[in-house]
Amino acid sequence: MSATAAETRPGDLAGEVRAVALRARAAASELALAAPERKSKALAAMAAAIRAAKAEILAANARDMAGASGLAPALRDRLALDAARIEAMAKGLDEIAAMPDPVGRSLGEWTRPNGLRIVRLSVPLGVVAVIYESRPNVTADAGALCLRAGNAAILRGGSESVQSSGAILAALRRGLREAGLPEDAIQRVPVQDRAAVGHLLALDDLIDVVIPRGGRALIERVAAESRIPVIKHLDGNCHTYVDGAATLEMARRIVVNAKMRRTGICGATETLLVDRRVAKTHLPPILADLAAAGCELRGDAATQALDPRVKPASDGDWDTEYLDAIIAVKQVEGVEEAIRHINRHGSHHTEAIVTEDQAAADRFLAAIDAGIVIHNSSTQFADGGEFGMGAEIGISTGKLHARGPVGAEQLTSYKYVVRGSGQVRP
Amino acid sequence: MSATAAETRPGDLAGEVRAVALRARAAASELALAAPERKSKALAAMAAAIRAAKAEILAANARDMAGASGLAPALRDRLALDAARIEAMAKGLDEIAAMPDPVGRSLGEWTRPNGLRIVRLSVPLGVVAVIYESRPNVTADAGALCLRAGNAAILRGGSESVQSSGAILAALRRGLREAGLPEDAIQRVPVQDRAAVGHLLALDDLIDVVIPRGGRALIERVAAESRIPVIKHLDGNCHTYVDGAATLEMARRIVVNAKMRRTGICGATETLLVDRRVAKTHLPPILADLAAAGCELRGDAATQALDPRVKPASDGDWDTEYLDAIIAVKQVEGVEEAIRHINRHGSHHTEAIVTEDQAAADRFLAAIDAGIVIHNSSTQFADGGEFGMGAEIGISTGKLHARGPVGAEQLTSYKYVVRGSGQVRP
Repeated sequence: MSATAAETRPGDLAGEVRAVALRARAAASELALAAPERKSKALAAMAAAIRAAKAEILAANARDMAGASGLAPALRDRLALDAARIEAMAKGLDEIAAMPDPVGRSLGEWTRPNGLRIVRLSVPLGVVAVIYESRPNVTADAGALCLRAGNAAILRGGSESVQSSGAILAALRRGLREAGLPEDAIQRVPVQDRAAVGHLLALDDLIDVVIPRGGRALIERVAAESRIPVIKHLDGNCHTYVDGAATLEMARRIVVNAKMRRTGICGATETLLVDRRVAKTHLPPILADLAAAGCELRGDAATQALDPRVKPASDGDWDTEYLDAIIAVKQVEGVEEAIRHINRHGSHHTEAIVTEDQAAADRFLAAIDAGIVIHNSSTQFADGGEFGMGAEIGISTGKLHARGPVGAEQLTSYKYVVRGSGQVRP
Repeated sequence: MSATAAETRPGDLAGEVRAVALRARAAASELALAAPERKSKALAAMAAAIRAAKAEILAANARDMAGASGLAPALRDRLALDAARIEAMAKGLDEIAAMPDPVGRSLGEWTRPNGLRIVRLSVPLGVVAVIYESRPNVTADAGALCLRAGNAAILRGGSESVQSSGAILAALRRGLREAGLPEDAIQRVPVQDRAAVGHLLALDDLIDVVIPRGGRALIERVAAESRIPVIKHLDGNCHTYVDGAATLEMARRIVVNAKMRRTGICGATETLLVDRRVAKTHLPPILADLAAAGCELRGDAATQALDPRVKPASDGDWDTEYLDAIIAVKQVEGVEEAIRHINRHGSHHTEAIVTEDQAAADRFLAAIDAGIVIHNSSTQFADGGEFGMGAEIGISTGKLHARGPVGAEQLTSYKYVVRGSGQVRP
């Protein structure tokens, strides 16, 4: 695993990417030993540098927007920056600066009968690569969360945001320099050449983890190609189950929020399951609320019979993350069928039950195999900020290492520190 | 991610392996909800069944040994079972039965300003595949550790131990049946056909993690081929550094133990680093101890000058895990050079410093990038049992999810359980 010096020839993209990773490795060794206050200072300086560079960032963004005139409106909206979005980015950095440091915490301590003292101590992961798509603010969020956890970050954003991300990155690096931390703690690899990602994913001797953040195609490419461990954020095919013991008022409030508050986020409910016992009383007003909010309704035969606006759901609907104002509705025989349906069709992201029956709630919370399970609240709360974890870099649908929101704490590992007084093993 | 019904045609190995995984998935759903006492009862019943099946297991092992007459003596020793080894296996199961259950623990609880109550709860990983080589006792250890953590296990042992492992597996399954847990909680895939491993590693929709336990070739094959996350146990190229402030008596005791107690385990020291300041006083007696214990000595020029038995070390020696009675010895300029050498050549497994200088020890423990760092004790303590974690399934040299000894606790994941009273997200 030794890191030999890079010899970069001009036009040698693989060598260029490797050189970035070698510099990240060196920066990570320094960051691992940096005091919490110094990292906080750097994060605050990064926030100040973002604010000071507002004009440059806006000018760079204008160039990106001019080059992206062919993009769909939703994608253009993701790409666009204005003064408020830049201030939000800076505020995010200030919040990360104020967070408790996740490194150097004791995760457990004990003494063995032979006198050996063992501490399990949180440490940084090392070098984290983040591969993302069009939103330029990910540059700041991902770089800052990695720094909080003592990791060096290698960023690879979408080509359409190359100017904006470059201007943000320059500001972050000014902040690092001012705080006396290595600028190479946050770097990026060439954005224009798609092959750069492939070179990055081969560097399992230098990079500790890859986090893809974007659409399914990106994440599946990274998972298939990477020799480095991946923290995956796949689909959020989330369900809300309205149990027979749900009050109508609470069910209405939660369902319309879970589906329609924002339809494009991964915690949005995509399928509504309703206990057949209350379908006649609860479903018509819920369907009316959804339709009034502009939601397309698709449902099984029993649900279609309740409301003429409900179109037939196909088998594929139960497995679809719409990320849009569409909902699939199905009637089930109580909590057990709801659990079976969700464990079969869900994506292990976020699943909710609405009920006043504590036993049904406990059964649901225990039996559902998902990162987040919710009783009597909205699936839209699936968010690191809403969980009180500060910023997040995504929501993991995998079970290893990190599950649910991935914040600074999830970007750490641990080591065992053993202190003895000459013990040898018999 | 839905698990469709298997259609197994005769002679269809891929279908056969998939059918095993589907049964494991179903068993895992049941195990995830099993009470701790029931799992303990099953583990105790498994221990009793192993003891009761002693004659069958010995007979099966005799068949394996007869078929393995061409194996090297060290491999034959790994394969061989006798009454004492069978009792040790059963005792291991009794110990795992008595362990605290790692599932259902609160890993953190908090209430949000909006009243949402969040608990991070430990849950099983799900389905764990363990791929190992000749030692038949891994069948019992791995199956039992997986069960303790509520996971279904799919085992794939070496072909030379097929009869022994089969007899052990039959006993384990009898124990599961007696305790009313699904027998399919512990299964194996066909051992004779090497292609079975390939089929297993493709089942990322059914298996949550793969743990290869064996030589480097096996582990690298699994890492390269698997679409499932892997917990890797790679080399243990461990170092002991004797600092200038080490007492001679403690350094002698620790070094000879760290190298020679057992040379074939991953925590055995492979390279000795000695501070140049004490090389003249400390190294000659340490080299004499090692030679007297039967250790081959290889060293840098300065060390060769101290003892005629020291052969020249080549560059490759610093990167070699001998797993044998051979040691590489190098003199360094204090703790900083020791840290640089270890972080460059070590395998992030277990690294030790011997010193009476607290500052040097703290610097070493903080700066070394390894799963286990030790002050004034032997690297041979790198072991889940010695850490008080009960049995272990290996020692992870990766940084994600599990690092260091992998016991039952490391075979769990977590979920966030959120309890509300009708909250919706603004």
